[in-house]
Amino acid sequence: MPTTDRSELPIDELRAVAHKLADAARAATLPYFRAPDLPTENKQAGGFDPVTRADRDAEAAMRRVLADLRPDDGIMGEEEADIPSRSGLTWVLDPIDGTRGFIAGTPTWGVLIGLQAGAGPVFGIIDQPYIGERFEGGFGRARVVGPQGIAPLRTRGTTLLADAILFTTFPEVGTAAERTGFEAVRDRVRLTRYGMDCYAYALLAAGQVDLVIEAGLHCYDIAAPIAVIEAAGGVVTNWQGGPAHTGGRILAAGNATLHAAALELLKTAP
Amino acid sequence: MPTTDRSELPIDELRAVAHKLADAARAATLPYFRAPDLPTENKQAGGFDPVTRADRDAEAAMRRVLADLRPDDGIMGEEEADIPSRSGLTWVLDPIDGTRGFIAGTPTWGVLIGLQAGAGPVFGIIDQPYIGERFEGGFGRARVVGPQGIAPLRTRGTTLLADAILFTTFPEVGTAAERTGFEAVRDRVRLTRYGMDCYAYALLAAGQVDLVIEAGLHCYDIAAPIAVIEAAGGVVTNWQGGPAHTGGRILAAGNATLHAAALELLKTAP
Repeated sequence: MPTTDRSELPIDELRAVAHKLADAARAATLPYFRAPDLPTENKQAGGFDPVTRADRDAEAAMRRVLADLRPDDGIMGEEEADIPSRSGLTWVLDPIDGTRGFIAGTPTWGVLIGLQAGAGPVFGIIDQPYIGERFEGGFGRARVVGPQGIAPLRTRGTTLLADAILFTTFPEVGTAAERTGFEAVRDRVRLTRYGMDCYAYALLAAGQVDLVIEAGLHCYDIAAPIAVIEAAGGVVTNWQGGPAHTGGRILAAGNATLHAAALELLKTAP
Repeated sequence: MPTTDRSELPIDELRAVAHKLADAARAATLPYFRAPDLPTENKQAGGFDPVTRADRDAEAAMRRVLADLRPDDGIMGEEEADIPSRSGLTWVLDPIDGTRGFIAGTPTWGVLIGLQAGAGPVFGIIDQPYIGERFEGGFGRARVVGPQGIAPLRTRGTTLLADAILFTTFPEVGTAAERTGFEAVRDRVRLTRYGMDCYAYALLAAGQVDLVIEAGLHCYDIAAPIAVIEAAGGVVTNWQGGPAHTGGRILAAGNATLHAAALELLKTAP
């Protein structure tokens, strides 16, 4: 396998490809968003984990772009089988992160595009097609382009839990143990909010919130957010302080001090 | 006090004034949204109920419009004292519904503008300035103008709780009794989501979700949503099935059948 020394990566090309992927997913998802009678299927026995034609079409559209422009790169995506990398690079794709939010019409789902080189993500995009807002981080850049123009992304310096704003997607968080871990942090922060899916990670990178805690994530849920948040100055690990790009239990913080304070409460979760 | 027979209202003028109010609030709120170091004050002893300069500026801007264009109408707003009506009409204003969401950078807060004539709201606007999305209902019209153009608002026909999507803003909902009432419905529906503030009512009017249940609301939190939802075909009452425009415990549903099914579970809440 070729080297994945970051200094040798064709950065401009990779960034351009990532934006082409985001453009393709926008075009594939928006016609279905808030469309009447969007059919949904349930992927989860005993629960409700919807997948829509929008998810499948958007991932297929992104895979076509990669087959054309980066045929040797690997692909890990939510809806189709993995393709092994022959280049040392792997694209990690979630065509719609927050499908439950998507089918409910909320504007806070997102298209996640991560690029992994070696041990973790080096570049990521969190795209919100309806708002027309794109957060990107990596290769020396962290910025958002949206309704108010272009702005740099920079996490903020809140160091005390008592001053922090915390997000998670739903109050159950995960298992009973995971919920208990989350609630230990929730009980110490200034404000807890729910329901944002990947958009919460974008807000963390933008310096609007201080902590995101989730559990049960897949690699494609977190690869892009890690790249965006790290490029903006934040810290993302699992609940033991280790690498988070394979998914599972996630702690994202705006800075190392706040991360350490939350980690102290989470790492005792069984 | 003059008559408030709806057939005699100057509908075109009132609608135009309502949109001027929404325009004024957009201009006043957006410069503060996601601005670094927005100062917040806490209105709630023992909790966190923030108010920002954006709330105050936006309400003041709307009051200036009304002083100029509709000086005899009453005003009930979140941030300043009530002005009694001399015309029979009263504007019910919430400059930022969802201030907690606003200070966290989420795009689902809203400006609420309701117009009351006699016993309840006859017209309302739910405006989301960042997305550039305006939901309006009343005077024979229900529509949204946003990133995808203009679309009619029409609630949907889900009649079974088992098929319904339910929203509330935060899982505690209100008192312990109110939380129990909410959870009785939550345990019967297909999907429950959190965190949307007034945007959940807009999604109900748009036929994207089926139920919104909240408690502890003020009149200015619900007047505009009632008008928008009723104009789109939905039903909004309190948890006893009575009028909801004074606030308190709110049940909003896409249709009368689903409303009755949820009300049956809520009305036993102590």
